Amino acid sequence: MFEFEVVKKCKHTGARAGVLHTPHGDIKTPVYMPVGTRATVKALTPDQVKETGAQILLSNTYHLYLRPGEKLVRQAGGLHSFMHWDKPILTDSGGFQVFSLGALRKITEEGVEFRSHIDGSAHLFTPESVMQVEQDLGADIIMAFDECAAHDKPYAYVKNSMERTLRWAERCKRAKTSENQALFGIVQGGMFADLRRESAKGVNAMGFPGHAIGGLSVGEEKKVMYDMLEVTTPLLDEHKPRYLMGVGSPDCLIEGAMRGVDMFDCVLQSRTARMGTALTSRGKMNLRNAKYAADFSPIDPACDCYACRHFSRAYIRHLVTVGEILGATLLTIHNIRFSVSLMEQMREAILADDFPAFRAEKMAQMGYACIDMGSGYALS
Amino acid sequence: MFEFEVVKKCKHTGARAGVLHTPHGDIKTPVYMPVGTRATVKALTPDQVKETGAQILLSNTYHLYLRPGEKLVRQAGGLHSFMHWDKPILTDSGGFQVFSLGALRKITEEGVEFRSHIDGSAHLFTPESVMQVEQDLGADIIMAFDECAAHDKPYAYVKNSMERTLRWAERCKRAKTSENQALFGIVQGGMFADLRRESAKGVNAMGFPGHAIGGLSVGEEKKVMYDMLEVTTPLLDEHKPRYLMGVGSPDCLIEGAMRGVDMFDCVLQSRTARMGTALTSRGKMNLRNAKYAADFSPIDPACDCYACRHFSRAYIRHLVTVGEILGATLLTIHNIRFSVSLMEQMREAILADDFPAFRAEKMAQMGYACIDMGSGYALS
Repeated sequence: MFEFEVVKKCKHTGARAGVLHTPHGDIKTPVYMPVGTRATVKALTPDQVKETGAQILLSNTYHLYLRPGEKLVRQAGGLHSFMHWDKPILTDSGGFQVFSLGALRKITEEGVEFRSHIDGSAHLFTPESVMQVEQDLGADIIMAFDECAAHDKPYAYVKNSMERTLRWAERCKRAKTSENQALFGIVQGGMFADLRRESAKGVNAMGFPGHAIGGLSVGEEKKVMYDMLEVTTPLLDEHKPRYLMGVGSPDCLIEGAMRGVDMFDCVLQSRTARMGTALTSRGKMNLRNAKYAADFSPIDPACDCYACRHFSRAYIRHLVTVGEILGATLLTIHNIRFSVSLMEQMREAILADDFPAFRAEKMAQMGYACIDMGSGYALS
Repeated sequence: MFEFEVVKKCKHTGARAGVLHTPHGDIKTPVYMPVGTRATVKALTPDQVKETGAQILLSNTYHLYLRPGEKLVRQAGGLHSFMHWDKPILTDSGGFQVFSLGALRKITEEGVEFRSHIDGSAHLFTPESVMQVEQDLGADIIMAFDECAAHDKPYAYVKNSMERTLRWAERCKRAKTSENQALFGIVQGGMFADLRRESAKGVNAMGFPGHAIGGLSVGEEKKVMYDMLEVTTPLLDEHKPRYLMGVGSPDCLIEGAMRGVDMFDCVLQSRTARMGTALTSRGKMNLRNAKYAADFSPIDPACDCYACRHFSRAYIRHLVTVGEILGATLLTIHNIRFSVSLMEQMREAILADDFPAFRAEKMAQMGYACIDMGSGYALS
């Protein structure tokens, strides 16, 4: 029911093309997963999400646990049925969210006590309780409960946290009883290469069907994130999918895939859309800019999305300027389609043995500088 | 290019079924027109609007004149092209909006000086300037510039205002030069039957291809509105379409059609949707109500809209409660489809010689009291 095939590997980098089989269908990798935090991709219907070519959605356990509650979602027949999405879904573990609560949470070996950001009510997340919640939500892929340490924490803190996350991963594995869900372990270790290696080896040894890399893109330089990926991915079973959590700007999608990552998720696409910003093949475009007021060309002439097929920059600028919801909708459709399409093109390039040239061309077109891999990267 | 055929008349009431031919297609009447104030039906793509069965949209001259400006819309190829809507469009004249500005406007014989609600800038609308704006916008049906007097104004004020509106209608007729647009005259006269009659006769005599009835549903009792309709519609050429401006709650759609109205527009459908309220065959439903939290039935089991086909009350309540845009989108789709469907059913009932029974049944189901017509109503 849940298998991963690597279809093709790039000869010069860690990039690979694969297929991930799930109970709700196959996912061609590398893949960008749009985020539907509260059981909806903001401003879109599921049909509009599907039309972007999205293959899998991410939804957030922390948010759904608080509202409407995982029991209600289970009663609805699970997340797929509740939100009318029949393709694969992945839920995170709430780890990132509860740690983001700062003063509102307290970590012990048992788990994390936290207060709701909505009403201040007290809650406890443990590896066991999170497994129960994720099982009730019923996603195809569920994540182990981890601690995502802040990027500026000292070595001793991060080491301790990483080791606890390994123990929590074991507890998650034991607590999970569902058979139609794949549980991914999560690598942590902050910005310390030796801790990342230790975590990767430890998680890899537990025999999860897939591996996530957490705690990156949390404030560090991109070069540091890429260094951490380079020490991590070679230690993760190449026959299992690798998921870089919360990362998904266009350059990171390419640079991450180059370092052996198969799956990505990011709210940037939808969040910036709601601010009036489009991701395009020529870089970011702020539709609020007056220079688009009478520009009747599409956002991105190279894009095949619903917004680019039917609407002008001038119209979308009008919508964004006056604050119409349709502006957010059209830009979200575009940004997701742009990212999904980038992954589709990337996969084609890998299959055609052309990834390095693809990367160089796309990064330059979009105005990003390539950050090359260290020479020591193991092309496993 | 612009013709109206009355296909069938109810034997017992003023209701009639017709077809209105326009440059962008035929409109079957009676018809409910969704409102796209700023060149977008709030929270929907034009494809979603089309899927509701909507045949024609209304857009607002005042709003588009201010932003993005009628010249920009003309540069885009007109409203149809700008907003990607290839069916008919009707623009109002801005009269209602500028009179709603209260202290920000000043009325003279020449026109209305007003200040923008956005930036306070000074503007002048005259019958001639409004015709120019509406021609630039390029809707199929355009409205004459009128004064919509408040419902509590004294007789002398309303009489003076109504007479000026007649003079303005003449000026509009002279100023209009476009050939592919139909200009409708507007009946005013407040809540005074004799002024309504005088206005209706005056407007009717000018030979417009269609007639609107303005200044109703502005705070008066529904009975008063219906009384005004009953003295007005018999005086308007039965071979021309009659449009009741800004009216469109489910009961008013039925009661208005019964009194000879062919066209309606209302923001209630989309505005209440954004507040979490659904119009249903059993009356209004506030999805914020806790009793829907675990209700997995559709909003209205009798409805065939996208929201009712795929989503539960529980899910929509969740969206509305947490403030997700999709909640507004789904409820807007539903409310518009509900109203469009009501008109479709009403037309079928008229064609089947069954309007009175249809009216009685629907009003009762929705929980509205029927307000019968005065015996003096002329069944012209």
